[in-house]
Amino acid sequence: MASPVTPPRGMRDLLPADKAHREHVLGVIRGVYRAHGFDEIETPVMEDSSRLHAGLGGDNEKLAFAVMKRALTVDDLKAAERPLDLADLGLRFDLTVPLARFYASNRAKLPGVFRSIQIAPVWRAERPQKGRYRQFVQCDIDIIGEPGVLAEIELITATSEALEALGLRGCSIRLNDRRLLTSMLDVLGFAPETHPQVLITLDKLDKIGTEGVLAELAERGMPGEAVAALHEVPAFAGFGAEAGFAAATEPAAEASGHVTAESVAAALPAGVDAAAVADLAAIAAAVGPRARLVFDPFLVRGMGYYTGPIFEVAHPELGYSLGGGGRYDGMIGRFLGAEVPATGFSLGFERLIDLVPPAVAQGEGDAALLHDRGADPARLMALKSLLIEQGVRVRLAAKPKNLRGALDQLAADGFGRFAIVGSDAPAHPDALDWRPLERSA
Amino acid sequence: MASPVTPPRGMRDLLPADKAHREHVLGVIRGVYRAHGFDEIETPVMEDSSRLHAGLGGDNEKLAFAVMKRALTVDDLKAAERPLDLADLGLRFDLTVPLARFYASNRAKLPGVFRSIQIAPVWRAERPQKGRYRQFVQCDIDIIGEPGVLAEIELITATSEALEALGLRGCSIRLNDRRLLTSMLDVLGFAPETHPQVLITLDKLDKIGTEGVLAELAERGMPGEAVAALHEVPAFAGFGAEAGFAAATEPAAEASGHVTAESVAAALPAGVDAAAVADLAAIAAAVGPRARLVFDPFLVRGMGYYTGPIFEVAHPELGYSLGGGGRYDGMIGRFLGAEVPATGFSLGFERLIDLVPPAVAQGEGDAALLHDRGADPARLMALKSLLIEQGVRVRLAAKPKNLRGALDQLAADGFGRFAIVGSDAPAHPDALDWRPLERSA
Repeated sequence: MASPVTPPRGMRDLLPADKAHREHVLGVIRGVYRAHGFDEIETPVMEDSSRLHAGLGGDNEKLAFAVMKRALTVDDLKAAERPLDLADLGLRFDLTVPLARFYASNRAKLPGVFRSIQIAPVWRAERPQKGRYRQFVQCDIDIIGEPGVLAEIELITATSEALEALGLRGCSIRLNDRRLLTSMLDVLGFAPETHPQVLITLDKLDKIGTEGVLAELAERGMPGEAVAALHEVPAFAGFGAEAGFAAATEPAAEASGHVTAESVAAALPAGVDAAAVADLAAIAAAVGPRARLVFDPFLVRGMGYYTGPIFEVAHPELGYSLGGGGRYDGMIGRFLGAEVPATGFSLGFERLIDLVPPAVAQGEGDAALLHDRGADPARLMALKSLLIEQGVRVRLAAKPKNLRGALDQLAADGFGRFAIVGSDAPAHPDALDWRPLERSA
Repeated sequence: MASPVTPPRGMRDLLPADKAHREHVLGVIRGVYRAHGFDEIETPVMEDSSRLHAGLGGDNEKLAFAVMKRALTVDDLKAAERPLDLADLGLRFDLTVPLARFYASNRAKLPGVFRSIQIAPVWRAERPQKGRYRQFVQCDIDIIGEPGVLAEIELITATSEALEALGLRGCSIRLNDRRLLTSMLDVLGFAPETHPQVLITLDKLDKIGTEGVLAELAERGMPGEAVAALHEVPAFAGFGAEAGFAAATEPAAEASGHVTAESVAAALPAGVDAAAVADLAAIAAAVGPRARLVFDPFLVRGMGYYTGPIFEVAHPELGYSLGGGGRYDGMIGRFLGAEVPATGFSLGFERLIDLVPPAVAQGEGDAALLHDRGADPARLMALKSLLIEQGVRVRLAAKPKNLRGALDQLAADGFGRFAIVGSDAPAHPDALDWRPLERSA
């Protein structure tokens, strides 16, 4: 066949070692989340097209893979006014829209406060590039039905302990609140209808620095007084003109204990949302030393649906975040027509996985039986079965010409010993001449 | 919103208890397969449309969900000659076509004999009906690169032990060989071009009985002498006119030891493929008591790609098989343009899961903290963290008005004890008044 045998564009095959590593890491994350009282659920990979395009997914909606209706005719194609008329389903682009649909379907069967784990792939038709895939795994935890900060406290603690359990030390969690942002812009004199624009600019602070932000706001025709007032905000002034993610986190990189009502208020103009200030302080007090919380008054987070505290995982050596989330009270209830409080934290698994060193433990006892082509299958199977009964993982392999290469491969696959089985195979594995397999460095 | 909040047609949400049960069962299967030396891999859920429709998937190709090209214009729709012109990708309908593509892509990085595990969902746009879903999980093991019966022996043994490990006792594995079927039809005098038709009729033996089969063959205009000769085949004559799956397996339901070269030959007309007879006997001898093998000379298996031994799992209480497979030497190499021997065994997970009783172990130590709405979050979090450090799974829950209902739910979720935490919460969980949670029968 002429076409290449690669996976579809932007998607990957997982070879045994990759798959084992990923499942190990997912198992660690799952275990921590379960210990924290969360329950795993699963939804179909497809949702009705109308739900995926209901406006809850922001720009990601445009990236949804569309699934064609079945039994279409050529006339249907000609009659369609736009491509989406031909699709009734689509692949999910995140796990939040499906969660809202799941909750609407199954609310009666769930606890009053529902803590969900979703560990599953999502699909986005993005331009493929290094480290960006069209199929990738997200790890989301969400708490639905809890209006108070206890939800944020549990999410942040569980996420932080999952990162610890993976050996990712030194991560900090940047914390802010949408209500603080909105009230700050009000106080500074930015008209409500300009807030989305101003937030887009502020979101670039760690890339373009304070001078860049001020220039862009002026360019966008924002009132000079408001821009000048922003300049006077203590946290903004203290940020320094220097751009860069490190600069954004470094000055505030202190223990959670330092995020107090006083320190938050002192960083902001007078008159910002008092409830939000109190909530951040309560979160920091309860999380305590379980996570390194950092107040970041210019953390914005892209999605428009956030309504309260928002957070993002920063790793000291990376120029990007490992995950994030926040409160989105308006959204989960959208498919129900009801107001349901909700808050979630999503880990970017594909970014995470590269930071965790593979720990495919070599099973010392795991055994390879290298046999002659002519060896009696019944004899081989008897040896294999006896080993498996002893709890050993066993691989049968015909003895190849290139023995060295085969032994290296077996060691790399995690097998710890091997024996050669001739046509005079003994009846019991203890009678074999076992030799250790060593991994090359 | 007007549209219903159910999952897409024919697809399901998995609630926490279902998800936990399924993951537990999958874990057992995965563990047995790994012990037997197989390695898990993963491929993207989508494949290029041209591969899915390359003729390897039989009738299932028609059931593939098609994924639309991105950035289509209305002109593209009008210019299309058939719906599939608008699709470049599709969701896999089985795990075998993706395995062939995977092997072609990655062969150089795999062992000479590659034993794969694939446990993953597939999608088919079938008419939804009870017990049939449009998204469902398959558990496949395949051995690629081994031409001899050792492959079949390992597959059958591993599958049988997985079923045992799940507590599904009494399963037998029906065994036949495509070469036996073909050579038998030759010997009986059915012209080669009629073989596919004859096999379709023979495949109905357990539904319509011997009389039904003979009538249908006559109806299809098969030569009277060949039909009469079939009647004389010992296994056919011995089958009895009675229809039904039980009738098909019962007479032959003996231990694998009874499948010998002599017993196989005695059931068939003289002159059938001697290599196939020898292979079946060798398989039975080596599998020995590890599985209940039953020679079924009229086992056909639907897919056209089988080339050697074929098998199917029969459960004594079910009118359908729990899985099946066989050798398909021509297929894995199709995307490579090379001949690669391969054989596989697939378990029908959705049928299996209903037979395995849920074993969500109640964690005796797993603890729920029922708290007053006004309890201090920092205090609650401290208690929770201390319990988690002790290896306990912890669920925080506000104390509801309907305490009884909440306790029942917690017990059903697997929690073994609870304590009520007031605003005077102690600093250590040992100081709480723990009470057991009991599951209602």
